[in-house]
Formats: sequence, structure tokens, C-alpha cells
Amino acid sequence: MIGNTFGYLFRVTTWGESHGKAVGCVVDGCPAGLELSEDDIQKELDRRKPGGKLASPRKEKDKVKILSGVFEGKTLGTPISMIVENVDVNSKPYEEIKYLFRPGHADFTYWAKFGIRDWRGGGRASARETVGRVMAGAIAKKILERFGVKVFGYTKEIAGISCDVSGMNADEIMRKAESNPVRCPDVEKAKLMEEAILNAKKEGDSVGGIAEIIVKNPPAGLGEPVFLKLDAYLAFAVMSVPAVKGVEIGAGFRVAKMRGSENNDPLVIRDGKIRFASNNAGGILGGISNGEDIVIRAAIKPTPSISKPQRTVNYKTMQEETIVIKGRHDPCIVPRAIPVLEAMVALVIVDCMIMQGLIPRSFYY
Amino acid sequence: MIGNTFGYLFRVTTWGESHGKAVGCVVDGCPAGLELSEDDIQKELDRRKPGGKLASPRKEKDKVKILSGVFEGKTLGTPISMIVENVDVNSKPYEEIKYLFRPGHADFTYWAKFGIRDWRGGGRASARETVGRVMAGAIAKKILERFGVKVFGYTKEIAGISCDVSGMNADEIMRKAESNPVRCPDVEKAKLMEEAILNAKKEGDSVGGIAEIIVKNPPAGLGEPVFLKLDAYLAFAVMSVPAVKGVEIGAGFRVAKMRGSENNDPLVIRDGKIRFASNNAGGILGGISNGEDIVIRAAIKPTPSISKPQRTVNYKTMQEETIVIKGRHDPCIVPRAIPVLEAMVALVIVDCMIMQGLIPRSFYY
Amino acid sequence: MIGNTFGYLFRVTTWGESHGKAVGCVVDGCPAGLELSEDDIQKELDRRKPGGKLASPRKEKDKVKILSGVFEGKTLGTPISMIVENVDVNSKPYEEIKYLFRPGHADFTYWAKFGIRDWRGGGRASARETVGRVMAGAIAKKILERFGVKVFGYTKEIAGISCDVSGMNADEIMRKAESNPVRCPDVEKAKLMEEAILNAKKEGDSVGGIAEIIVKNPPAGLGEPVFLKLDAYLAFAVMSVPAVKGVEIGAGFRVAKMRGSENNDPLVIRDGKIRFASNNAGGILGGISNGEDIVIRAAIKPTPSISKPQRTVNYKTMQEETIVIKGRHDPCIVPRAIPVLEAMVALVIVDCMIMQGLIPRSFYY
Amino acid sequence: MIGNTFGYLFRVTTWGESHGKAVGCVVDGCPAGLELSEDDIQKELDRRKPGGKLASPRKEKDKVKILSGVFEGKTLGTPISMIVENVDVNSKPYEEIKYLFRPGHADFTYWAKFGIRDWRGGGRASARETVGRVMAGAIAKKILERFGVKVFGYTKEIAGISCDVSGMNADEIMRKAESNPVRCPDVEKAKLMEEAILNAKKEGDSVGGIAEIIVKNPPAGLGEPVFLKLDAYLAFAVMSVPAVKGVEIGAGFRVAKMRGSENNDPLVIRDGKIRFASNNAGGILGGISNGEDIVIRAAIKPTPSISKPQRTVNYKTMQEETIVIKGRHDPCIVPRAIPVLEAMVALVIVDCMIMQGLIPRSFYY
Repeated sequence: MIGNTFGYLFRVTTWGESHGKAVGCVVDGCPAGLELSEDDIQKELDRRKPGGKLASPRKEKDKVKILSGVFEGKTLGTPISMIVENVDVNSKPYEEIKYLFRPGHADFTYWAKFGIRDWRGGGRASARETVGRVMAGAIAKKILERFGVKVFGYTKEIAGISCDVSGMNADEIMRKAESNPVRCPDVEKAKLMEEAILNAKKEGDSVGGIAEIIVKNPPAGLGEPVFLKLDAYLAFAVMSVPAVKGVEIGAGFRVAKMRGSENNDPLVIRDGKIRFASNNAGGILGGISNGEDIVIRAAIKPTPSISKPQRTVNYKTMQEETIVIKGRHDPCIVPRAIPVLEAMVALVIVDCMIMQGLIPRSFYY
Repeated sequence: MIGNTFGYLFRVTTWGESHGKAVGCVVDGCPAGLELSEDDIQKELDRRKPGGKLASPRKEKDKVKILSGVFEGKTLGTPISMIVENVDVNSKPYEEIKYLFRPGHADFTYWAKFGIRDWRGGGRASARETVGRVMAGAIAKKILERFGVKVFGYTKEIAGISCDVSGMNADEIMRKAESNPVRCPDVEKAKLMEEAILNAKKEGDSVGGIAEIIVKNPPAGLGEPVFLKLDAYLAFAVMSVPAVKGVEIGAGFRVAKMRGSENNDPLVIRDGKIRFASNNAGGILGGISNGEDIVIRAAIKPTPSISKPQRTVNYKTMQEETIVIKGRHDPCIVPRAIPVLEAMVALVIVDCMIMQGLIPRSFYY
Repeated sequence: MIGNTFGYLFRVTTWGESHGKAVGCVVDGCPAGLELSEDDIQKELDRRKPGGKLASPRKEKDKVKILSGVFEGKTLGTPISMIVENVDVNSKPYEEIKYLFRPGHADFTYWAKFGIRDWRGGGRASARETVGRVMAGAIAKKILERFGVKVFGYTKEIAGISCDVSGMNADEIMRKAESNPVRCPDVEKAKLMEEAILNAKKEGDSVGGIAEIIVKNPPAGLGEPVFLKLDAYLAFAVMSVPAVKGVEIGAGFRVAKMRGSENNDPLVIRDGKIRFASNNAGGILGGISNGEDIVIRAAIKPTPSISKPQRTVNYKTMQEETIVIKGRHDPCIVPRAIPVLEAMVALVIVDCMIMQGLIPRSFYY
Repeated sequence: MIGNTFGYLFRVTTWGESHGKAVGCVVDGCPAGLELSEDDIQKELDRRKPGGKLASPRKEKDKVKILSGVFEGKTLGTPISMIVENVDVNSKPYEEIKYLFRPGHADFTYWAKFGIRDWRGGGRASARETVGRVMAGAIAKKILERFGVKVFGYTKEIAGISCDVSGMNADEIMRKAESNPVRCPDVEKAKLMEEAILNAKKEGDSVGGIAEIIVKNPPAGLGEPVFLKLDAYLAFAVMSVPAVKGVEIGAGFRVAKMRGSENNDPLVIRDGKIRFASNNAGGILGGISNGEDIVIRAAIKPTPSISKPQRTVNYKTMQEETIVIKGRHDPCIVPRAIPVLEAMVALVIVDCMIMQGLIPRSFYY
């Protein structure tokens, strides 16, 4: 879990700078015998890709190549190396501001940590890094499919415009969310969100929001207390995604205002099984999944790259200066963050299912 | 980081059930040459101890014994084993409900995971487990002291009553927070919170709240992107604490409603050093500390143990039943959670400082 | 696997200095539902205990106490904390030589690493540390028993006197090895070894030897290439035992002189299953167990504590001096090392079986 | 350290099958500011490359490409991804025997573990996997260079012909070892070894041997007892290399026949520092380096791929059969194993130096 490796038994190592030769990842610990093709990966990469009027105009073709770990269409149980070349890279706008730390970015902190930074497009701190997460997550999702577990997400709120999906079932949420560029299943709200984003863009500014990720049909028993609790592991995974500043599970921050009698989910018998009558817990009690849907929300900050002038420091001269960022940037990162967040959640669920002995080392036996 | 071990280079392993013989922890990776006495540990344990009208009447004397790793008053660099015996244990009230899963508790999930559970006082899932965290955190705090770094917390909100500490400095917050049983530095609000807790208690109910933890004077450069980011690590640590359902850093969930121009903290030169004019980032950018105070908030749910009747399931009969919990319980866990949350944050900061090469293996050289 | 924690999914953390208050360990990741009593642990501790004319006269009663993780005679799946108090401790002889580094000991290196050391009986570097290993190993052995896997060892060589067990079956080797104080199944050779040890002792000297550990009836498929190969993991485990200077698997160092046609074990069908006609591989091919007995040998150096005068350095004066070690010491450590080596091997096998999905999280389902 | 990732703070993840598209590795945790070029890596890869009459005729051009982590000629502190394409691959000879398990190979065990295997050239179990180790090791060596630490190796024994380097200094050993195809610094013995290899080859057979690796000028204090001892870590690293069946440190298996008075290395004052008069310990005491040269030897088995007919099993028919292996194989793997073993040792030393606080996160400060 240190540095650029994520996971215990299902492990992902990602690498690559935004304007370097390529980005990629290595997935280790994947069970043998899983059918896997480049199309399975590409499908998820395409969901992450920029495009459209709401997103960065950078054209990332993002064609994945699988270099190892798959033989005759199936995984071998050996590490799966995947790579996406960086094309349409233009470092010019970054060169002009290479001694200025962009506010809200990791420019200063990378420099403070390593004494150097790759100023081209944010280097390793660029959201381009998430290509590796999405590729690995695609494999995790394929595994979960075999067990009837689904991970999906949608935009809950953008620029203060919030939507409510109670009353929709999972399929409806997914279908409607994917039907519009903001990934909001409430189509009316989606339009308002779109407007708010374009308004901010026009003013050279950006907006934030909230994404919700749901794990449908998870098994009970996942999570390894007292430290590697399922909610702790999910919080770790989600908070590691660029731009996330808050994470909550189930009722989340609303619990602060609730009474115990209101927040506690009663246990009931349903279809002969022990279930819960409500889901304030978001599917997790004592750090272990209880079999109900797992519900996670992430607060995503407004894109730090804005074209409005901002105060900052030039570290060459050690003088304060005004920075104007050109480049190509999403005025709102929430919609594109959703496939990334889904990927991280899927990785956690697969890892915990392996730990709990629910996924075998090989699908051949 | 798996199961009952926390940390990479500064590692804590905790153990013990609520009504077992003892609880304890082993701290490995502590630098040699740190002055350490049982008093240093006891001081923090005493802050966690129940007592007073707001807390559980269980009398936990909680006397720590250090069994290894310290020689002639200083740490050896070898593992430090600490133990607290369980006294004043009464399993009676639990025996009566041992086949009923308490709503809001880990009773069902432990049973689902392990096929068995220790029903006496919640077993390993009891908040008594946090004794081990606090003992380890006490050592982490002693280390941080040498570097001028302070970790402290206070109650931000209880039962919807919220306080504002802007205008107070760190010392004032700490002093005032410790002056009242709810640990709220706003003394007026503290009284209202106290009232709200007692009202809930009278009704056999409980209330939730929000705690804020601050790291004063942290070095820049902490955190190991892209996965073990400082905020991700803190979210993991904080979410692993019993009853926490949400974590946020800096502006946290408020970023969802902010614009980039508003949220981005401008960089400035202050006292000849690069600093930030505001701290919406909560001291962390791109997963690395930026030298400003680190600010974390945790949403804490109302204590699940309430005396009001609740619906649940008897797993012996597989029938729905009504449960009435007797036992001894805090009607609000927030104030006692604060030393635990401080401990977890201190552990993370020490671990990251070691990784960053800022804490030596021995204070002798 | 860092510092004082061993294992990935079945994890052991040990602690304690030789002349401190106690030594102990915490075992995390043990499946729930395993019958476990203090007697199970004590039995193995007693095999490790000194005693008899060949061993150190220190009387270690070594009574184990289980402090957590076991409820109504069965494991809970939570951490198992075990402790043995240090009694009959006499630090006097060590005080006299506390500024002299004992040759062949870790005195100098602990001091070089930590800038301090506990000079009382070797502190953490004492073989007393292995009490924790043996306690954890006892649990591992209990688990293996359920799967028909047995780990046992014997003395292969002492002071150049070597024994041959070909022709004996596992039960015979075990029974005969335990019948004499040198743990050699060849009873004639055992007497010669005993003599050699007593001769060395008389001269104030010590002797070394070779121990062989066998895993009977292991499943095929254990080990996680390309790094956590089963043989690599075993080499790690065995080399971490005090006094071990070499490890070999199967034919071991003899392969250097063999031809491929001689060393390769032919595959055959036996009882309808794929097996091997010989076992030069020692049960491991490509880092994965092949189903044949796993055979490991460890070279154990002569006890460094000898009463003969030796050259060394006084680090107070930084002058060369002559040291004469009094204390109480085994003139040959091989027989007592065997239960320790068995423990380490058992820990590895259990850990790898969990990784391979062969041991469930709970024996209740 | 699990699966295909090696190391704690300096971490290497390798990937790739013998006849897949490529092999590669990702190095994470490398300090920033290290000068690094593809030539630095290529130099070590070339030492591993086959060629000459003693080796496999497979022409591996093995041209490395660095894909990330290096910017303007220096490391960024971010992951370094390196790749080597597989060319001159001929799977034909393997296809003919794809249902036959080659004796002495991992064919059977991979199949037993994963239920499938890549039969083309041994897949992941091929020694081609070691390309990733050597690339990572080249970076480790570059780091060590900055601290005056050198890791080098030579052939100690092949086919029973053994050489003695006492009397040669490090530079001489290195220079002479690299001067002949068997990498033996005793030029006379080198010729005899060469002859023995060619004789074996003529008979369709193979021979084994012993390699010695030396760490010149290591700092004292490396290693993390009681489990991650330096010798345990080295044993792990070395035993994980294909074909290694035994590892020893310093006097190694010879200690079994030694007396304590003979084996203990006396401490002396040399040049005002505490040093050792002899080095039976091989530079390691109590699992921590003592400042003397670290000396490790590995027993390497004769190449299992021989053209002589061998008994084996066809797993399609579950019948015994005779196998004749064609393909292209080294009749002795020892010389080519040396750069691989050096790499593994260098990785361990760098990792331990980082843990001990001796290597900074960045060479810029």
C-alpha cells in the first residue's frame, strides 16, 4: 500500500508522468483463468477519457496494450502489465510557468518532498495517473461480475445542485448516469449542472461536487478489523484519488445530527436471511460488510487549474507573482472522476474478497 | 496495515477483547534513545478513560505496564509491549442478549465473518480496543514533541450544536477543550452540548457529533503518492476508529459548493519562506503536506447501545425480536473519541516523517 | 515481514528482552474455531526449554499465558496474545562485561545500529527471543494437523558427526530424535555427539552442527513466485533464527557437483497421481511445492558464548581487551534450535496455505 | 515482498513471460536526483545476456527502454518503468512437448498452483524473468556507488572444480572474473570449468556450481531484527533466483564443523575504529551488518533443460512418457546467474540502507 502500489493480495502498481512516454500499471495477484481482453480494459478507459464541451480538449486516444499475464485469452495468475502511450502531449504552456507553483496543485509539495518536479503537465501528480487505476479497476470489475457484484457511481452534486436517486433501481441509475456528460441520473438536474459548469468555464473558473459510488450485492464478512476495516480501506482508496477532500459511508456526516434510535438499522428476516430494514450504515458495521449495498460518497474539489489570475510564488526568484494558467483543463472533474472512483472501490472489494477466501487463486478449479 | 497491525515503519499491533484478561499493544520501529515512562502513557490513557455523568459508569482503572523495549528510562529500538488488565468486567447483561444482534453494532458482521463472536461486551469490536491505539499514540506524540509538532483535537459539533474556534490559537483551543467534559473549547456551546447529551440519555437514546483534529507545525513533504498520500493515510487511520462514518480534510465537503478561485490557497512569501495565504487544503496538496496546519474532521455516529427497545433478530431461533440493551454506555462517544483520533493522527505523522527521513533510527546519533 | 513481525496473512509479532519483565508474541490472522489451550503451547515450549547436562543451567519455567483471542476453548479469529514471564534472571555476570563486545554476538552490531544496547543477557538479541517463535509455531502446527501436514526436525550433524535417516520413516525419526538430548534419531551417533559436546564444554568451548526439518505431506501449489517463492520464504524464515549461517533445500549444496540428468527428479504416476520418483528438489520446483516432502537443512554455528579467553574491544575505553564470559550457556545450540526451526517452517507453510486458499478464515463454515 | 514485488522502501515489481510481448519492471522508492540513463541499465543487461559457446544460442538483444520516472537525466522520485521487448522468440520446440512436464522445471508446479501454465519457453517461470531483476539492480548499484559500496560476484565452483580468491583484492577479482566466459577469477580453473561445461553439453547434459557475491565496504547497522535480519533478507533474495538450492553467509555450512573459539571473529581496533580480525561471520552478526565485507554464496543446480531422454508424465493422457528437450539452453547457468545475484544483493543493501536512514529521499538536499 506504500507509494505507487495499492492492495494486499490483489495488488496494483501504477507508473507514468503526464507528459512522459507512457502511463501504465502492473496487476499482480489476479486469479488464473479469468477471460480478459484489451476490449475489457478499453471500455473502462473510454469512460474516463476527456471529450465534449465539459472536459479538457486534450485528445487522449488512450489505447491500452496488455503486455503480459494473459495467454490464449485468459489470465495466467502472473502479473498483468498494461500500457497506454502518451500522445497529443503539449508541454509548451507549462514551460512558461515552470517556476511558478500553481495554487491548488501539488507543484509546491512535490518540490518540497523531492527537491525536483516534472513541471510538464503536472508530471506524476497529474490526474493522468488515474489511467493506471482505471485499467486495474477494469480487471477487478470483471472478477466481481463472476460473483454478481456490481460497482457503479454517479454524480450526486455539482456546484450546489444536488440530485436524489431514491426510487431508482441500480440499473436505472447506471443507465441514466451514462446518458449525459455530467453522469447525473436525474436528467433535469443534469442540465442545470451542465449549465453551472459552462458558466464557471466562461468566467475562467471551475466548480466542485460530490460523487456517490455503490457496491451492489456485496457479500457479508469483508474487511479486516481493527485497522484494515472495510470502511477504512475504502476511505483510503477514495481519498487517494486526486481532488478528493472528503469521504463518507452511508449516512456519513449526517450521523452527527442523528440520534442512535434513528441511525441504528434494525435487523430483520427477509427471504429467510438476516438483513437490515434500513441502510444508514452504508453496508458496513464494525468495519465489516453486512451484506447490504455499500454506499460511499466523495467530495471533489473544483479543478485547481483555472484561467483567472491567481497569486503565487516564483521559486526561482522567491518573489510573489500572478499566474495565469493556460493549458487544457476540465472546468469540473466530477464526471470523469466517477470511473476512477469506481475502479478504486472495485479494487478494495476484490482484495477483501480474496482475503476472506471468497475468490480462488484459479477459476480452473 | 492488515488486520490488527497499523503502520509501515512505525508499527502498532493491538490485541484484546473487552471482557478478556487484558488489552494491549506492541509498538515496533520506535527510534532508540527516546525517554519513555509509564507516566507518559498513563497521561493519555487517563484522557480516554470513562467517568463523569456523560460517560459509561464502567470503572476502567486502566493502569499501563510496559513489558519490553525500554531500558534505563529510554527506548532500545526494540518492540515496546504494553498491557492494561481488564478489571471491573461484568458480562452478565450481555449474557442475556447473547443470541440477539445489537443494531448498529458489529455483532452480526463478526458472526458473518468468523462464524463465532465473543458476545461479552462486544469482544474485539468493543471500543475498549482503542486502549491499544491510545498507548501507541502516546509514544508517537512524545516523538513529535522533539520536533515541535503537536497533535490535538476538540469537539466541533454534538447533536447539531456546533462551535467555531477561529480566533483562538492552538494553546487556547487545547486548554479550553480539556476544561469541560465534552471537550469543546467554546464554553457556552459546551454547556448546550452537555444538556443535549443528558436529554438524550434521559430518553434512553444517544447523540452523534463531529471531532476536529489539528496537526500544528508539521513539516512539508509528508505523504507517499500516488496511493499512500498523507490525506489517504489519515482517512484510513481515522475511519478505522469505531463509530466514525465520515472523514474530511481542510474545507472537506464544503469544496463541493466552492469555485476553484475561492478554494485554491494562494502561495505567498512569509518570513522568507513559501507559505499559503489560506488553508482550504487543510495542509495537504496532491497528497503531500505543504507545511500549513493539517486539519481533519471525523463524523461520529450516536452510540449504538441505547436502552430504547429496538427491532432485531435472534440468530438461534432466526426470529425477529425486540432488544433492550442494559449494560453501561456513553450516551455520546465524541469526547472520548478525541484522544483516540489524536493517537491515530499522531501515528500517521510519525510514520510519514520516518519515511521522509526526518526521524532517525536512534536519538543517540 | 519487517522488524519483529513475521508473515503476510498469518502474522506473528514477537517482543521482549532476555532479562526484561517478559517475552511474548501476538498472532494475528489465525482462523476462527481452532481448539486452542495453553497446554498446546506449553508442550512446544517445553521442547525448547533448557535443561540437562548439555544445556544452559538457567531454569526457565516458561509458563505461557494466553491473554486474548481464545473464547470458550476456541480461537475467535482475533489476535492471540501470549506471554511468558522472565524468571530466574541473573544480570550480574553481564554487568561485569557490559562495555566489552562479546565476539560472535550481536553486541557490537546492536550498538552500531541503535547507539545503545541492553547488555543484560543479550537483550533482544538473546535466543530467549525464540520463545515467541515457538509459541506462534505451536498454533501453526495445530492448524497443519487438521490438514494432515506434519513439521518435524532432527539433528543431522554435530561437531562433524553426521547421521543418516534414510530407511527410517517419519514417525521413527521423530520418536527416536525426541528420545535423546541431542535430538539425533541415530542412537549410536547421538552418543558420539553428546560426547563431543561434553568435550568441548570441558575445554570452555562449543560446537556447531546441522539440523534438518521436514514437512510431511504438504499440498502442492504453495509459494508465490517470482519473489515470495516457497524456498525463498523458508530460507528467510530459517536464516532469521539466531546462529543459522546457511540454509539449503533438498540436495542443497550437493547440486553444485551434480549433473542435470542426475539431479532432475523424474515425474511418475503413483496411485493415480502425478508424483516424483526422487526428491532432490526437496519438494519445491520453481519456488512452488510439488507435493513431495519439503526438506530444509540449516547450518548452526557453535555457541558464541564460550568461557575461553577471547580478544575483543572495550567501547568505553576504545582499547583491546581480553574477555572471559561466565553466564550460563549451551555448549551446543543445535538440539534446542530444532523446535524453533520447526516453528518457523510451520509458520511459513500455514501462511502459504492461506495465500493459496487452502485454509479458511473460520473452521465453523 | 509478496508475489512479483520485492523490497520494502526500495520496491521492484517485475512482469513478463518468456515468449510474451515483453518483460519489464517498475522500481518505486528510488531517491530523486539520481543521474540515470538507459546506458546504466544496458550495461548490466549486457552482462546477463546469453552468448558464446557456453550459453543458450537464443539471441536476446535486450534493449532497455525507460518509460517513466526520469526527467532531464535524473530520477524524479516517482516510479521508474523499464521494458525490454521479447525478440527472437521461437515457441515451436515447446509446442511439441506442451503436455509433458519437463523434469526439474516449474511446469508441474505452476500447473498445480494455477490450473494453467504458459508452456511457451517456461512462461513466467523462465529465467528470462530475471531481466527485470537485473534492470532494477542496475539502479541499486548506481545508488550504492554514491556511498562507495560495491556489489560484485564470481564463480566459485563449477562441476566440482573450485577456485580460491584469497590473496586477490576486490578489483582483481572483478576484473579477472569478467575476463572469461565462466566468470572465474582463477584463470587456470576457468579453463577447466569451461572444459567441464563443454563435456557435459556434448553428452546432452548440464552441470551446477557455486557463485559468491561480495558487498565491499558496507556500512554497519543494516538489517531489521528479529525477522528482517540482513542475512535472512539476503537469503530470501538469493533463494528467489531461479536454480538456487542453497545459501550461506560467511563460513556458512563450514560452521557445523567448527568450534566457537575458532569461528568467533575477535574484535580489534584498526585505524581507530572497531573492526574484526577475521570474517567468519561474513559481515553479519545477530542479523545486522558489522562493517566488514558481506559474503554470500549460492548453490546453483545444473540446468534442468537437458537433451538426454528423461522420464516424465503427459498430463493430457496421464501416462508416463519419455521427454527429449530441444530448445536452446545453457549447459551451465552459473556465469549468467552472477549479474542476477548481484542485482538481488544490491536491492537488499539499498533497501536496508534506506530503512537505516542512510539514503535520503532526494539527492537534491
